[in-house]
Amino acid sequence: MAQKPNGLVIVNTGDGKGKTTAALGMLMRARGQDLHVCMIQFVKAETGNWGEFKSAEALGIEWHKMGDGFTWTSKDMDETIARARHGWQIAQEKIASGEYDLIVLDEFTYTMHFEWLITQKVIAWLKANKPPELHLVITGRSAPEALIDYADLVTEMVKIKHPFDAGIKGQRGIEF
Amino acid sequence: MAQKPNGLVIVNTGDGKGKTTAALGMLMRARGQDLHVCMIQFVKAETGNWGEFKSAEALGIEWHKMGDGFTWTSKDMDETIARARHGWQIAQEKIASGEYDLIVLDEFTYTMHFEWLITQKVIAWLKANKPPELHLVITGRSAPEALIDYADLVTEMVKIKHPFDAGIKGQRGIEF
Repeated sequence: MAQKPNGLVIVNTGDGKGKTTAALGMLMRARGQDLHVCMIQFVKAETGNWGEFKSAEALGIEWHKMGDGFTWTSKDMDETIARARHGWQIAQEKIASGEYDLIVLDEFTYTMHFEWLITQKVIAWLKANKPPELHLVITGRSAPEALIDYADLVTEMVKIKHPFDAGIKGQRGIEF
Repeated sequence: MAQKPNGLVIVNTGDGKGKTTAALGMLMRARGQDLHVCMIQFVKAETGNWGEFKSAEALGIEWHKMGDGFTWTSKDMDETIARARHGWQIAQEKIASGEYDLIVLDEFTYTMHFEWLITQKVIAWLKANKPPELHLVITGRSAPEALIDYADLVTEMVKIKHPFDAGIKGQRGIEF
């Protein structure tokens, strides 16, 4: 007898590369199995001609951009916080709708790490409202301990060697 | 003045999840920037209806399956080794052709770890033949030290928590 689908809470954290790109790979894989998937980006800027977004469009992956950049580049912190909270509202609607098999909350850890959202409230809401069969992927550095406790699958991406250390800049198709 | 493109050698290693999925995300991103990309899978079985393969087809990502499964499931080791070596021949042709911007050698570390290929010979060949502008992504556990020394960007995916530990099986759209 096939196992009943059991939605996983997956966290990709750590200072290394691959947190968001692995989430992209999961979207690509799930979409190829005709699952209903959704990407919600919390912190990336709305501008920028991202390669991943073009491919996602071609695959029919639903994609929402919420952020206005990282805090350390933000000129208006209130606006940044308001956008993060708006993103969480959208995420809550998508999660509670029951219409998705996999949802990615990209760079969502920052909203909790910077206390734009209260970690315990987020987790309590997810425990009460996440459909059991929904896979939820959360990415970003500095994942709160309470989120790691709640998650089923947690991977830390650890930087062993990075070309920026050697002065090589980000490149089209690789970094964006 | 824009920086001259500088092809990176990227290694995703470690016992955690996300090594191959992050490479998939890189293919998706690069393809969305209209770069020429190629995936060569060394160890995955030829059978199996992988979601990522369907999405890759839809995006026009070139994809080669070389492996016949992991060694610990192989019934014929000579055949496994021969396939790995044939995969490396194909990879060498693709790499040396100069026709690609990004090539992924998925699970390629095993061919060196199990000594189906000699690590130092592989690296010497890459140093002599890899076009400077080509990005090369190599995934798999147990990356040899010499490969890490040669690479520009190395990330270790570390398992913090895994649902298989709690008896949850792999699921369609998530694990395959």
